[in-house]
Amino acid sequence: MITIALDAMGGDHGVSVTVPAALATLRHQTALKLILVGQREAIETELARHHATGGDHIAIHHASEVVSMDEPPAQALRSKKDSSMRVAINLVKEGAAQATVSAGNTGALMATARFVLKTLPGIDRPAIITTLPTMHDHVHVLDLGANVDCTPEQLLQFAMMGSILVAAVEGKSRPRVGLLNVGEEDIKGNDTVKKAHELLRASPLNYAGFVEGDEIYTGDMDVIVCDGFVGNIMLKTSEGLARMITHFIKQEFKRNLLTKLSALVALPVLQAFRKRVDPRRYNGATLIGLTGTVIKSHGGADALAYEHAILEAVAEVKNNVPARIGQELAAMAARGAVA
Amino acid sequence: MITIALDAMGGDHGVSVTVPAALATLRHQTALKLILVGQREAIETELARHHATGGDHIAIHHASEVVSMDEPPAQALRSKKDSSMRVAINLVKEGAAQATVSAGNTGALMATARFVLKTLPGIDRPAIITTLPTMHDHVHVLDLGANVDCTPEQLLQFAMMGSILVAAVEGKSRPRVGLLNVGEEDIKGNDTVKKAHELLRASPLNYAGFVEGDEIYTGDMDVIVCDGFVGNIMLKTSEGLARMITHFIKQEFKRNLLTKLSALVALPVLQAFRKRVDPRRYNGATLIGLTGTVIKSHGGADALAYEHAILEAVAEVKNNVPARIGQELAAMAARGAVA
Repeated sequence: MITIALDAMGGDHGVSVTVPAALATLRHQTALKLILVGQREAIETELARHHATGGDHIAIHHASEVVSMDEPPAQALRSKKDSSMRVAINLVKEGAAQATVSAGNTGALMATARFVLKTLPGIDRPAIITTLPTMHDHVHVLDLGANVDCTPEQLLQFAMMGSILVAAVEGKSRPRVGLLNVGEEDIKGNDTVKKAHELLRASPLNYAGFVEGDEIYTGDMDVIVCDGFVGNIMLKTSEGLARMITHFIKQEFKRNLLTKLSALVALPVLQAFRKRVDPRRYNGATLIGLTGTVIKSHGGADALAYEHAILEAVAEVKNNVPARIGQELAAMAARGAVA
Repeated sequence: MITIALDAMGGDHGVSVTVPAALATLRHQTALKLILVGQREAIETELARHHATGGDHIAIHHASEVVSMDEPPAQALRSKKDSSMRVAINLVKEGAAQATVSAGNTGALMATARFVLKTLPGIDRPAIITTLPTMHDHVHVLDLGANVDCTPEQLLQFAMMGSILVAAVEGKSRPRVGLLNVGEEDIKGNDTVKKAHELLRASPLNYAGFVEGDEIYTGDMDVIVCDGFVGNIMLKTSEGLARMITHFIKQEFKRNLLTKLSALVALPVLQAFRKRVDPRRYNGATLIGLTGTVIKSHGGADALAYEHAILEAVAEVKNNVPARIGQELAAMAARGAVA
């Protein structure tokens, strides 16, 4: 039985998303227990709305406070010791849960998780890693915003963590790792990227070299590494562009009666397409490099998206990701493969 | 009459793109003269293929050498004094042409243009600026790869140049300027971005503050500023994602007989959509900050895309962009608005 603590109050929609998502997940995951962490009354009311009464697979763990979405992380960490986020992370530390999922404030989640769980030996700072769709399959990209300034050594650590995660969860023995860089002939990136390139070449990883921005979506890599500044802008740019393209397609189909009729004919195809690029299917970023599993759901996630974040937590617990990262880093260090 | 020198040999396709594009442009631009710079024989052969014999609006200027697409910029600058690229830029310097367009090697073009034309007073380094489509209209983004490491002062210079370009070419009196940054609550960017933010707030520009990656495509800004590392990755990521989405739409419509039939019905709509996001319509990036107008076409541009790059050169010459940037920078400096 896997036990996961959900920060039931986190995100833009709180219990109205987390509770139905928990119930929906339990309908098809039988060896799973979910602990709903947060204000008991709010959770109970929401459970009742769904005619759910608890049972062996669902529990409520009361926490009186809520971290707001725009609260400064340092303040959340200092003054909200009984927040649903903090208590959920504590449950992982104490071993009462094997992972936690939160749709709350990213900065507060990162700060609290780092403070409570600590980073693995050999890891300076945790990173945020997520999955993006590609032409052929999908790719894991990190860091997506936890570290705006990175050293070459940190980029190497990100590459190692990403590689171990993909090996563990997807069973790929030698994940292909690329380092995001600019592609102009005269300027092969800044000093940090150049030094990270050398470190990666000397590492035991299956390093494929520099990749340019357009190679993120080709599917040629399993892991792509960048600093959190670039990663965050890359991710958000992609979200914005996908939204614009969807908007344009809708507009064109709504132009006149004829185009509206053709939309009816094309509807199944358009739905299949939308399903394929549905960001909800890719919801659930991992705070990687910690001693426990912490999954960040998008703040605006709906129940379907939140369910995907829970499933990501299940997959990482099943595959023992933090322990494997710890073991492999120790093994690499012992072999002298990394400084 | 506006005169533009085309690097006829530049790009992946050389004269087979540049010559027909020149002829197509002249069909609807009457007050324009194009000088085709490059190997006379190759250009004449291509003109003959199109049954064109020259005339008042088209001229050939022989240049014996060609800069290859992967040639190191320093080598091109040092050893290819008679390249089509170099000679075309020389024509601008000598006043024989008011602008040049090249689809050649970006690094070599930047190095040569900077060496021959020099930067405007008050500008440390030129930047690359281009137009991207947005939900409502379009946006100008710089730098797209000329400068991988930027100081806060350079970001301010980029903002000023972008703002003056938009004011000049589009007649907008107070272009809205945004500074690209990450959006997580705890980390409001790196030191460079924070300092640039302060400089921009103190400047006379219509500065709207930080924007996140997803705001590039909303159309709320006229100019978005970032360093060349981030800008290049943002641009290439967008190209890659757009390609993937188009690929997925095609795949879904090709799935079976029924979806193929619905594609026939939806064809006019899909074509209208494709036209709207057609990157060829946005071809033509400006090397901004030089004493003359230099337009970089995509290396793989076809004739339609290359024609758009020529039209961008025409618009900038008509609106006297480099001189206006020079004048406004001098005026700002005189008012003590910038250091």
